[in-house]
Amino acid sequence: MSDEIDAPPAELPQSEPVAPTGVSRRGLLGLVGAGAAGLAVGGAAGAGIAVAAQASTTPSGTSSTTYPFFGEHQAGITTPVQEHLHFASYDMMSRTTREDLISLLQDWSYAASRMTQGLDVSATGAVGGPMESPPDDTGEAVGLAASGLTITFGFGPTLFDNAGQDRFGLAGQRPPELEPLPAFLGDALDPAQSGGDLCIQACADDPQVAVHAIRNLSRIAFGRAKIRWSQLGFGRTSKTTAAQTTPRNLFGFKDGTANILADDSAALAADVWIAQDQPGWMAGGSYLVARKIAMIIESWDRVRLSEQQRIIGRDKAEGAPLSGGDEFTAPDFEATGANGKPLIDQRSHVRLAHPDLNDGVRILRRGYNFVDGNNDLGRLSAGLFFVSFQRSPAQFVTLQRALSTDAMNEYIRHVGSGIWLVPAGATTGSYVGAALFA
Amino acid sequence: MSDEIDAPPAELPQSEPVAPTGVSRRGLLGLVGAGAAGLAVGGAAGAGIAVAAQASTTPSGTSSTTYPFFGEHQAGITTPVQEHLHFASYDMMSRTTREDLISLLQDWSYAASRMTQGLDVSATGAVGGPMESPPDDTGEAVGLAASGLTITFGFGPTLFDNAGQDRFGLAGQRPPELEPLPAFLGDALDPAQSGGDLCIQACADDPQVAVHAIRNLSRIAFGRAKIRWSQLGFGRTSKTTAAQTTPRNLFGFKDGTANILADDSAALAADVWIAQDQPGWMAGGSYLVARKIAMIIESWDRVRLSEQQRIIGRDKAEGAPLSGGDEFTAPDFEATGANGKPLIDQRSHVRLAHPDLNDGVRILRRGYNFVDGNNDLGRLSAGLFFVSFQRSPAQFVTLQRALSTDAMNEYIRHVGSGIWLVPAGATTGSYVGAALFA
Repeated sequence: MSDEIDAPPAELPQSEPVAPTGVSRRGLLGLVGAGAAGLAVGGAAGAGIAVAAQASTTPSGTSSTTYPFFGEHQAGITTPVQEHLHFASYDMMSRTTREDLISLLQDWSYAASRMTQGLDVSATGAVGGPMESPPDDTGEAVGLAASGLTITFGFGPTLFDNAGQDRFGLAGQRPPELEPLPAFLGDALDPAQSGGDLCIQACADDPQVAVHAIRNLSRIAFGRAKIRWSQLGFGRTSKTTAAQTTPRNLFGFKDGTANILADDSAALAADVWIAQDQPGWMAGGSYLVARKIAMIIESWDRVRLSEQQRIIGRDKAEGAPLSGGDEFTAPDFEATGANGKPLIDQRSHVRLAHPDLNDGVRILRRGYNFVDGNNDLGRLSAGLFFVSFQRSPAQFVTLQRALSTDAMNEYIRHVGSGIWLVPAGATTGSYVGAALFA
Repeated sequence: MSDEIDAPPAELPQSEPVAPTGVSRRGLLGLVGAGAAGLAVGGAAGAGIAVAAQASTTPSGTSSTTYPFFGEHQAGITTPVQEHLHFASYDMMSRTTREDLISLLQDWSYAASRMTQGLDVSATGAVGGPMESPPDDTGEAVGLAASGLTITFGFGPTLFDNAGQDRFGLAGQRPPELEPLPAFLGDALDPAQSGGDLCIQACADDPQVAVHAIRNLSRIAFGRAKIRWSQLGFGRTSKTTAAQTTPRNLFGFKDGTANILADDSAALAADVWIAQDQPGWMAGGSYLVARKIAMIIESWDRVRLSEQQRIIGRDKAEGAPLSGGDEFTAPDFEATGANGKPLIDQRSHVRLAHPDLNDGVRILRRGYNFVDGNNDLGRLSAGLFFVSFQRSPAQFVTLQRALSTDAMNEYIRHVGSGIWLVPAGATTGSYVGAALFA
């Protein structure tokens, strides 16, 4: 169905650097200073290979689905959307070098190639190492199955150009489109929840598996990169396969009915994957846009049903467009009611976001609901963590600008934002982004 | 197995007040001012009964487990612990009356009796009401099954005596034991994450179902009570049935091996349920203690495996006591190693918390892991949301005091705390706490 599923089964990674003997295992985990990390890492990854067959974790549990880590594309884009998300944005630490960045991507890829197969981050893992060392793996996923875990890495604009600084010698390879998103009408962005040099999207059907992945990747990054912001999500808000029922967002409406499906290879080629005429590290990649959208749910909950439906442009029960039919009937924006007015309001969300009114622009949505507790007024801090993949940021920009008059805007606030280029998948034994440094 | 399971299947609630004709449906949802809420509510609940058979939601989905809401005990105590938690603490709003409190408990019980059966909060629910009114139900759980939802209500000390004020005419019925927990060594409690007049524990196997429950109960409380603080959790940290595997906490260790099991009726009677010689609203209830325990996971993750195991007193791989055997072998605190020292350290968590060293004191644990994003240093804000049930707060106090020298304390901070009396279960058609107001 998806490219991930068609790809060959993942093999244990074969790291490119040869392992020097006697390299410290602490190097793998980045527990040394940033200066030394780049040196130790390749070797540690190599050292891991030698005993990889002795994986300390035997997955068990109910969701043993695994997706290959290596392949043409990174997993987590066309993968059938899982139930839980842990997303994290990272900044490279000051005084880190190009070699630190390379070693980080190597270490991350190695750990991700294992965790996505239901294994600990290293061969010795949580309990198989020396008693007198901290374990490589933090252990809370021991005994849990892979749970469909995917780990997807992205490169932000600042990795290439940080306020004019070319920290990693990458400025010359920055695609012109990889730049911060423009300001949109009504943006209320918090810089502490926006941007970042790197991002990791971890999705799994078990939240503990997704959390374990981000926690261990953050630990591996120690001394090289640190979390800038992070977000947990649940209850996918996007249908990505024909078999999935359309889920509901926290406004209580079905969401993602018209999403690009993971088996629609024509749409994926046209709208999601960066074209093959682009540099090799990009071709087959995709641009990831994340938007943290706070929903003013207490206000929304006081809106009468007819008005809620007018704002969305669909009925709440079935998700059918207000022009009639069922959930999967195409909306008819010309249809009018007895009063001569359009059945689907001009400012409705479904109309403004529809490809027909946006020169055919489509994106692959892969968002999650979130609840971050409550605010000082006792209201739930909740909303939609919107994630979309597209071959060009211009697709998102076009759609988001079209939504500037969305009647829904009264009930939402965009409080976080980021864009990253998700490079092509890693070839077996290599690492994500390797071609960028070739 | 549990009392809940033995109880007769829930019937649709028969509210005690008779429905006045023409009562506003808005009354049910508390969308009127606090003054009027008490009046409208009983009637609205009654009005709901008349059309309850026309429930607008037909549950579907994968986890159709339902637990009865009505019964001798409230559900959510001995119920096999579900995968997800949404816990909320509420304060009654200023100028609310005894009648407001009664109406709130009636409305909450009515809605809970429906939601736990996979139904919307009312008969008209999310989409069955008039188009020109806000829907009774917020809708995000439409199409989702009951998912094992339990909703458990508790009464805090301040409901009976708020700094000397007897707001609800309940001071005379306050059990002497229902008082704020004493201060413990090392407490770092945040008042904004502690206490509260009322609490609701919503547990379900689908996080969206648990969130839907708290959201709708908060909405129903509008004008009468508001959320003081709330907490989401995942990955239960307590084994409550013999069939459940022992889960792992965020220190990577199995947690809850020696928990009271839900089918151990002798232990439940001795340690969990408030005795039958207590007033009827209490007998068969239990005291709920919640502690938000932040884990300093980055520090823990740098501790060598031998030291982690020494602190816990069990091995990390299997959870066996360091005195030998397997997970379920009783720890032998007298056993010594070749060096003559005890195999289980004197300050280990397993020893200090063990009933044998605490006059046989046991509690029923029912906690969850949590991750609340990250702090400014890029570290995950994570830990354990500890929940326990006991027939007397003294049980928890004894154990927590014993833990004052726990070697684990270096890696944890208690940042939130609360105690509530969970009254007995509601009889069919009545509401939780009814006997308190008789």
